[in-house]
Amino acid sequence: MTQMWWRDACQPLDTAAMDQARARQQQLTKPAGSLGQLEGLAIRLAGMQGRERPSLEQVAITIFAADHGVVAEGISAYPQAVTGQMLRNFVGGGAAISVLARQLQASLEVVDLGTVDPSLALPGVLHLRLGAGTGNFARQPAMTDVQLAAALQAGRDSALRALDNGAQLFIGGEMGIGNTTAAAALASTLLGCPAHELSGPGTGLDGAGVRHKAEVIERALVLHGLRADQPLQALACVGGFEIAALAGAYLACAQQGVAVLVDGFICSVAALLAVRLNRQCRPWLLFAHQGAEPGHKAVLAALEAEPLLALGLRLGEGSGAALAVPLLRLACALHGQMATFAEAAVADRPA
Amino acid sequence: MTQMWWRDACQPLDTAAMDQARARQQQLTKPAGSLGQLEGLAIRLAGMQGRERPSLEQVAITIFAADHGVVAEGISAYPQAVTGQMLRNFVGGGAAISVLARQLQASLEVVDLGTVDPSLALPGVLHLRLGAGTGNFARQPAMTDVQLAAALQAGRDSALRALDNGAQLFIGGEMGIGNTTAAAALASTLLGCPAHELSGPGTGLDGAGVRHKAEVIERALVLHGLRADQPLQALACVGGFEIAALAGAYLACAQQGVAVLVDGFICSVAALLAVRLNRQCRPWLLFAHQGAEPGHKAVLAALEAEPLLALGLRLGEGSGAALAVPLLRLACALHGQMATFAEAAVADRPA
Repeated sequence: MTQMWWRDACQPLDTAAMDQARARQQQLTKPAGSLGQLEGLAIRLAGMQGRERPSLEQVAITIFAADHGVVAEGISAYPQAVTGQMLRNFVGGGAAISVLARQLQASLEVVDLGTVDPSLALPGVLHLRLGAGTGNFARQPAMTDVQLAAALQAGRDSALRALDNGAQLFIGGEMGIGNTTAAAALASTLLGCPAHELSGPGTGLDGAGVRHKAEVIERALVLHGLRADQPLQALACVGGFEIAALAGAYLACAQQGVAVLVDGFICSVAALLAVRLNRQCRPWLLFAHQGAEPGHKAVLAALEAEPLLALGLRLGEGSGAALAVPLLRLACALHGQMATFAEAAVADRPA
Repeated sequence: MTQMWWRDACQPLDTAAMDQARARQQQLTKPAGSLGQLEGLAIRLAGMQGRERPSLEQVAITIFAADHGVVAEGISAYPQAVTGQMLRNFVGGGAAISVLARQLQASLEVVDLGTVDPSLALPGVLHLRLGAGTGNFARQPAMTDVQLAAALQAGRDSALRALDNGAQLFIGGEMGIGNTTAAAALASTLLGCPAHELSGPGTGLDGAGVRHKAEVIERALVLHGLRADQPLQALACVGGFEIAALAGAYLACAQQGVAVLVDGFICSVAALLAVRLNRQCRPWLLFAHQGAEPGHKAVLAALEAEPLLALGLRLGEGSGAALAVPLLRLACALHGQMATFAEAAVADRPA
């Protein structure tokens, strides 16, 4: 890697705006602290946007899709062709994230980083074709350094497009049959935690399937000799194009000063990678939900994340993050529009 | 009580519509079960609305406010005058629920069942004046049988107005300085659980204040000799006008076939009362969140409720329920608008 742009400084949060927002929260007509997590959220968004009263009209969603060579090891309940089929569904408007983006009036960009069908050409999809999926990491590195750099840059490019379009919040989604296996392998490496503790059913493996998946990961980690303090090498050896792109997008958002709402297990692993690549990005990451995939809890704990939702989701596509957007918007509306004790002539002191 | 209307039959859920909705969920382009709680929610709303694809455009919010004589025992951090001041704030648009109702395009009705200032007359507030607050239940019953019947009927009237206005979802909110004390006393009676396990800081008591509050409740329960199998008597002796109105509203909604979204601790206690008065109402009750007040968890567990949110809220006013409305709407949108595997030509079977 010649140009390690992700090490460049991230924006600081605006502490003066956060102080103003904190003072305002204390004056609103409610018992102090009674809006729970929404109060801290409004204050943090104030720091990100550099103003006492933040808002979140413009939400940009990008789905990063890619295939995974490790599917050859029989670690997924669904056939690999589904990745390409779902790309069509995303732009056709029938996928969960398509419905959610419409309801939220968010933009939806779909990036194909490399699926098993290199001739796939869908109107409305940005086909980057970094490869016909990754290599099977049970036998070889998932990607070359050139592919890794291109995937990170693809995420950065998406973040910069979102910024150009005025996004106040960036959501990355992912689609890739086999990608919970890559995510579990990365999390196992970065957290120093056995793969069987981080491996789950993904789209629907049974118990034997999950055990097999964990064994495939354990063997691969031995094969590649990965270390927790070498996140880039882990990403190249057992990651995925879409996971690298997500990490790149999160890092670029933090460098540009755009709030990020992180989705489920795979996105949270990408967030963990981003933080390991450049710790300064952490304040820009908000966490939408704790999902059903068993490894998610450990990754969120390592990130000291306080997810907003816990609905048992395990779909991906950015859908859990999209579902949390109304909470962020309502947190801003409450913070910006509630009356103060003085304005409403309400007693604000104990009897 | 001569006319116990709340014992009348509640509407059954439409099981045919639920079966259709369940079958549809299995065909949508996502792994089965991957939308977690939102799938069951869409199916249940289908049963309530009697159609395969439910929707929730029309949301009616009613805030029931009342004062509590037990405040004389020093069990609240805020002065009793705040109840009336907040009524003004509700209709003035500056309270949390006012902001949320606007954002959700929900109707907002404010009912004053009886505050300490009997001359209070605010445009936009329905003043029912059942009394200058309840009696101090540490020394006497909180209300007479006549007041109890009127409060239950007031809730029912609100539910019927909401139905007349086309409401597809009813949210009851509450405001009343001292009402976590009444709610804890009721929960203690109905659950057979010591008051100190159900007493919390409310609007902001310190540790000593919480202990005093629990002692006041324990003494009152001995004074009145309440029993778990006599919910009406408990409501009259240690309840509140707004708690009775909430229970009446929930029961009437179930009788009329309108979905209910239950807010926090006090509303959940009202829901528990409603279920004890007529078990048939339970299927119509959805639970929005688990709040910060310590007794809430026990009440939700007794109701076998699966709350959607857990954000550390403790504001009341129906605010937690309002915050969960977008999740219900998005659950309906996903259920109604996602493509099926056949429509999108996506493989729906394991490889």
